[in-house]
Amino acid sequence: MAQDNVAAMSDAPIVRPLPISGFPEWLPEVRVVEQRWLDTIRLIFERYGFCSVETPSVEALDVLMAKGETSQEVYALRRLQADADDDSARLGLHFDLTVPFARYVAAHFNELVFPFKRYQMQRVWRGERPQEGRFREFTQCDIDVINVDRVPLHFDAELPRIVHEVLTTLGVPPWTLNINNRKVLQGFYEGLGVADPLAVIRIADRMDKIGPGGVGELLATRAGLAPDQVRACLELAAIRASGAEVVEQVRELRVKSDLLDEGLDELAAVLADLADLPAGSVVADLSIARGLDYYTGTVYEAKFVDWPDFGSICSGGRYDNLAGSFIRRNLPGVGISIGLTRIFAKLLAEGLLSVGPASPADVLVVIPSAGRRPAALATAAELRGRGLRVETYHQPDKLAKQVRYAVRKGIGHVWFPPFDEDRDHEVKNLATGEQAIADPAGWSPPPRS
Amino acid sequence: MAQDNVAAMSDAPIVRPLPISGFPEWLPEVRVVEQRWLDTIRLIFERYGFCSVETPSVEALDVLMAKGETSQEVYALRRLQADADDDSARLGLHFDLTVPFARYVAAHFNELVFPFKRYQMQRVWRGERPQEGRFREFTQCDIDVINVDRVPLHFDAELPRIVHEVLTTLGVPPWTLNINNRKVLQGFYEGLGVADPLAVIRIADRMDKIGPGGVGELLATRAGLAPDQVRACLELAAIRASGAEVVEQVRELRVKSDLLDEGLDELAAVLADLADLPAGSVVADLSIARGLDYYTGTVYEAKFVDWPDFGSICSGGRYDNLAGSFIRRNLPGVGISIGLTRIFAKLLAEGLLSVGPASPADVLVVIPSAGRRPAALATAAELRGRGLRVETYHQPDKLAKQVRYAVRKGIGHVWFPPFDEDRDHEVKNLATGEQAIADPAGWSPPPRS
Repeated sequence: MAQDNVAAMSDAPIVRPLPISGFPEWLPEVRVVEQRWLDTIRLIFERYGFCSVETPSVEALDVLMAKGETSQEVYALRRLQADADDDSARLGLHFDLTVPFARYVAAHFNELVFPFKRYQMQRVWRGERPQEGRFREFTQCDIDVINVDRVPLHFDAELPRIVHEVLTTLGVPPWTLNINNRKVLQGFYEGLGVADPLAVIRIADRMDKIGPGGVGELLATRAGLAPDQVRACLELAAIRASGAEVVEQVRELRVKSDLLDEGLDELAAVLADLADLPAGSVVADLSIARGLDYYTGTVYEAKFVDWPDFGSICSGGRYDNLAGSFIRRNLPGVGISIGLTRIFAKLLAEGLLSVGPASPADVLVVIPSAGRRPAALATAAELRGRGLRVETYHQPDKLAKQVRYAVRKGIGHVWFPPFDEDRDHEVKNLATGEQAIADPAGWSPPPRS
Repeated sequence: MAQDNVAAMSDAPIVRPLPISGFPEWLPEVRVVEQRWLDTIRLIFERYGFCSVETPSVEALDVLMAKGETSQEVYALRRLQADADDDSARLGLHFDLTVPFARYVAAHFNELVFPFKRYQMQRVWRGERPQEGRFREFTQCDIDVINVDRVPLHFDAELPRIVHEVLTTLGVPPWTLNINNRKVLQGFYEGLGVADPLAVIRIADRMDKIGPGGVGELLATRAGLAPDQVRACLELAAIRASGAEVVEQVRELRVKSDLLDEGLDELAAVLADLADLPAGSVVADLSIARGLDYYTGTVYEAKFVDWPDFGSICSGGRYDNLAGSFIRRNLPGVGISIGLTRIFAKLLAEGLLSVGPASPADVLVVIPSAGRRPAALATAAELRGRGLRVETYHQPDKLAKQVRYAVRKGIGHVWFPPFDEDRDHEVKNLATGEQAIADPAGWSPPPRS
């Protein structure tokens, strides 16, 4: 067998282990930081009473398509050796965690306690063309609340407040959470006498990409708006304010509708609730529309202050008719998603992450000699029994080589079991170079900085 | 917008939120146990110095196919709106974590420190027809060691020892780890004068499914073995022993080859290394072959003692030519995989898991009245600041309703902020029914049992 495979190895064409663009993977010293981030996020989400939910990566395509406009981004599955009754053709990888969560709530409606608050930290997939900050597989960290009939408006402020705590705790560079309300947009467009407000929202959502000029042109040519309607829409989209003054600025445009009033009241209430956060961290931005059709009220979109063109790092909003649509119940929800991989990869690329170590071990136990290997293993077992993370070196190499291995893996301490029973154990702190006698029954490493 | 969507809700055909068979998902009170299992496994893996690695869910199909025989199980991707230069056609979801890990080591060869020991806990996908214990999406927890040129044989024993610690710590019901060595099989078949030992291994691997009769027939008809060769192969496969006596039992069959001797030496050494584990937990079983073509030495397969037909719950082995095949280096490896979802789902189905609670919160802070909501939120924030996990109720309902919510979510304590500033806070232990005055600056819940 071994011989066979060695032969195969030299004859067969090599399959190069090339990375696939858009599918990130990290070295161990980076992964350990990502893992720490995930632990921190989970801790904070649980501190607010959100429970963990995971859903399959795969949903029926008609569930993924239940609320429009994303079909081009979905990876569908096919079995390589599909037979006639293959059902994988109607399955696809989820492109966000909101639609699967809404489906989950509908599927388990009778078994859940409402209001149902969950966090969900999973990979999602989008069949996009990769570019900076755009991945085809990435991790999102979502919190959502879904309730029967009514989700109190204070949740629209509570969720960004939790995200604020998360990003602050992680030490993410300055960002702004831009808030808008789809009722403001729809109510404004209705008040203007626009026939198809949703079509206008979809065009307005492209402000980031094509600017006011491009949006104005599309509003005229594609949505059929008159010049004064176009002007009013662009004036609305230009409004940015950090507090209740946003209401006055909209009113100055002299458009009226009940839905607009309702949306402005909600927007002002959410801003007021978040007014104690540091200046600039929350801003009403009436150009924010969010492309997804399922949003019905508050919408969020966060961006880095220093990299405004990098795109959204958190997003979400209120979706009053998504979960309920699966079972004809009234199941409104609100949620927000942290684009973990996008943020993490950007900070890594900018050199802003302090990475390492490559090993989780607190200490490396060296093998003094082949004969002393059992004694070294017993020492390692004793240290592990006290909760320490301990790697044993794999063979009785020269001690200098074993120590070098610890250095290269970022292990902070090296443990030297004695060469014979009568001598003492010693431990070396690789950061300080100090080496001292140590007792396996009592020694602990100083806490990692 | 709200109106529009309500209209859409009542008109559109309903997309039923049906579960897709083979893609499990858990209620919160089950997920919390799964999360605890994952935390325990990770802790033990790290205690042995294994670092965390994750790879993309997606690999190039030619990487997945680099070592044979699994093509029918792979889910390939296709973009729903694929264009001419769509490259997703050559991508697929990984079906295990060994092949992606071997590819990872080859891809990052110059950046890793060897021997490279990693754990990897991720979902994998197989386009199989679902049946009991067979999922199409499931989580595996793997540990592997890959080194340049040589991985000492003691790792073949260390890895199952770690798995033993994991399963014991999780309280998994009795299982047996069956061990064999592919060199024993190949050497034995070579010594018998069989022309294509690999073909015989693939047939022998079906012993579980078709029994000795079926295997014997295939060995004769498909592999072209003579009756005495068939008889010898079946005699070999019938050998089960828990220690070095396995060597004698094989020798009694009077087949000789150098590779057989090498394999028996390795098998005996691994069994001897594990001899201190409880009786019956490790057994040499010469019928174990493992279907995957990449194994070259030790192979493992664990089964429940009480459910022998349930199939494998852990598996793995030594693959001396997998990672190296991507870059023409000698990069042997050995690894073992815990079939987390299979084990977890089985215990859940058998009623052997103690599930719950549905909420991670230590305490629910009630809202005494609308006017006292800010005071209740401040109390919750103070408790959170001390590291407690705190949910606040969402509206000033009757207190009995708020308490009932805590009961239904499995939250152990309810916190009653005072109705006015002059009174005391009180906290009720829902397990004991006791209610007592409490100070938010000092109170902690008793540890959960």
